[in-house]
Amino acid sequence: MHGYTGNRDDYLKRLRRIEGQVRGIAKMVEDDKYCIDILTQVSAATKALQSVALGLLEDHMGSCVVDAARAGGPEADAKVKEAAEAIARLVRS
Amino acid sequence: MHGYTGNRDDYLKRLRRIEGQVRGIAKMVEDDKYCIDILTQVSAATKALQSVALGLLEDHMGSCVVDAARAGGPEADAKVKEAAEAIARLVRS
Amino acid sequence: MHGYTGNRDDYLKRLRRIEGQVRGIAKMVEDDKYCIDILTQVSAATKALQSVALGLLEDHMGSCVVDAARAGGPEADAKVKEAAEAIARLVRS
Amino acid sequence: MHGYTGNRDDYLKRLRRIEGQVRGIAKMVEDDKYCIDILTQVSAATKALQSVALGLLEDHMGSCVVDAARAGGPEADAKVKEAAEAIARLVRS
Repeated sequence: MHGYTGNRDDYLKRLRRIEGQVRGIAKMVEDDKYCIDILTQVSAATKALQSVALGLLEDHMGSCVVDAARAGGPEADAKVKEAAEAIARLVRS
Repeated sequence: MHGYTGNRDDYLKRLRRIEGQVRGIAKMVEDDKYCIDILTQVSAATKALQSVALGLLEDHMGSCVVDAARAGGPEADAKVKEAAEAIARLVRS
Repeated sequence: MHGYTGNRDDYLKRLRRIEGQVRGIAKMVEDDKYCIDILTQVSAATKALQSVALGLLEDHMGSCVVDAARAGGPEADAKVKEAAEAIARLVRS
Repeated sequence: MHGYTGNRDDYLKRLRRIEGQVRGIAKMVEDDKYCIDILTQVSAATKALQSVALGLLEDHMGSCVVDAARAGGPEADAKVKEAAEAIARLVRS
């Protein structure tokens, strides 16, 4: 069980849609579509991926981080550090 | 013919790899993998998409924008504005 | 007392440096410096600001969010939601 | 003369406002303000900086890049590559 387990079906649906978006972008490249139109689709897929990441992160903080804090001990610090590093990777990608 | 035509096969290969990455992320969600590990893969896929976008943009500027500038007339301004809007969407995604 | 209080002097030093960077960028515009060199400095200042934000966020999660979790009750959920919204603003800026 | 010269006063005004925003963020840290409120201001300053960068970039493409293209010769390629690198730094910051 993870923070995202309750929303698993929703994430799977969104990820399948993003997979389709990326396949659609490849099709646009194959069909010689106009570069700017391709870029618009790449931005949309990127935004959708970031949005999945933000959801997973919120679920993670609301469960793993909160649970570690409640359990007490040094584990909470490690979880916060780990989440902060994941956020940094996200902000810089 | 577009700016990216000469690199089409390379873009297609990269987009297929990203499609596989997104499918792999869905598999991780299905298999109840640890949230932070999923987030790491989402960041990697996002970065790969941004990198495709930056390549397409450079190809576009080096062909469509440069060609419009050489042709003279007001078309160059329109192309620059269009590229700037695509860059803004990219920076904000 | 906040999560960042223990690191206040460090944040103040970094923010003063960023203030100086922004002043330096204005000076470059006044002195008619080359656009790409100005953009390089804007990217550096942006990165420095994002890095301050990531630090503040980690301090915040390690104190306010963890404290609310330990206190129990519905406050922890509200803190997680608030932090997630701050992260979303950061990722999209 | 650069692409941004015609808009210099506007850029200077915006950069001075951003400098003030950063000074205001330092003041919030000094005054022990709530972390999330500080983060909101950091996101706003970051967005304002990115917006200046996008403006400078559009001005640059509409002048330096277009001029190099019109002049012909290999200079246009170098200008496009340089602009693409500046865009990549921006997207990744």
